[in-house]
Amino acid sequence: MAKKLEDYVLTIPDFPKPGIMFRDVTTIMQEPDGLKLAIDQVCEKLEGIDYDVIVGPESRGFIFGTPVAYAMGKSFVPVRKKGKLPRETVSQEYELEYGTAVMEMHKDSIKPGQRVVVIDDLIATGGSLKCAVDLVEKLGGEVVCIVALIELEGLKGRAKLEGYKVESLIKYPGA
Amino acid sequence: MAKKLEDYVLTIPDFPKPGIMFRDVTTIMQEPDGLKLAIDQVCEKLEGIDYDVIVGPESRGFIFGTPVAYAMGKSFVPVRKKGKLPRETVSQEYELEYGTAVMEMHKDSIKPGQRVVVIDDLIATGGSLKCAVDLVEKLGGEVVCIVALIELEGLKGRAKLEGYKVESLIKYPGA
Repeated sequence: MAKKLEDYVLTIPDFPKPGIMFRDVTTIMQEPDGLKLAIDQVCEKLEGIDYDVIVGPESRGFIFGTPVAYAMGKSFVPVRKKGKLPRETVSQEYELEYGTAVMEMHKDSIKPGQRVVVIDDLIATGGSLKCAVDLVEKLGGEVVCIVALIELEGLKGRAKLEGYKVESLIKYPGA
Repeated sequence: MAKKLEDYVLTIPDFPKPGIMFRDVTTIMQEPDGLKLAIDQVCEKLEGIDYDVIVGPESRGFIFGTPVAYAMGKSFVPVRKKGKLPRETVSQEYELEYGTAVMEMHKDSIKPGQRVVVIDDLIATGGSLKCAVDLVEKLGGEVVCIVALIELEGLKGRAKLEGYKVESLIKYPGA
């Protein structure tokens, strides 16, 4: 029987710290069929949606966002950690478990009115995805869909992304 | 006249510090035609080469490596900074301008004898690419080609990668 996408995901207990079940997506792309399945399924979720740009947060959003952009003939715009982008940026702070972090986008990377899809590997608490959404909106873009490979439903990331269309390929009930 | 790939590259003087001419590749992927041109030209460089796996160093190697892997039906394996990969790794130190850094790959990410293409955005001094090559070889892989979008010829990265097939899409004579 053909492997399903979830069959490619490896779960690592206690990484990066005790109690966390880490869902490893490197085992998806480590197989040609896994990478193809993941990208094709993201493209399917976007069928019928009108959009111009794919935005991906550093750095696993790069891995899954750019093949989709290439396959669908869209542009790809990275959201990066503070200080990595060479031109004029907008920035947005978001909360981590301990403390805060800042993400940035180039000011000219989204034109006002452009329709944007945000792609990342994971919806956990939704904090970093909400930060990407906020950055897109600061630039006048409209977020028409958020797609993640994996959703950890126990962390209630959807609540933080309320009002947006949110899609995920694999859902785990826990954290 | 159709734009060439180099027309999409923006040069930022004095980033990240005075005297450096930073070649910005985000302006390539920020246009659908730029991203398509870059990926298609990397694929052309790989025509006739027999390979199994694409390896991309964190994090711009992710951006240009995964679309090529997807388009060509290959697997994609990330090279990451120390501590980011959840499973058992091999690691390799390399020199930065000041000090050193360590990159890692998952131990099971390359099978002995697999033929590997390394893709990154830039060949500068060649240090980080040589580190990726060393990691692949530690795992028993054979590096059959190294492809970068941009080569800064003045930094003599090719000398550090002597003995390997090295391809670049755009060459700048300086540093």
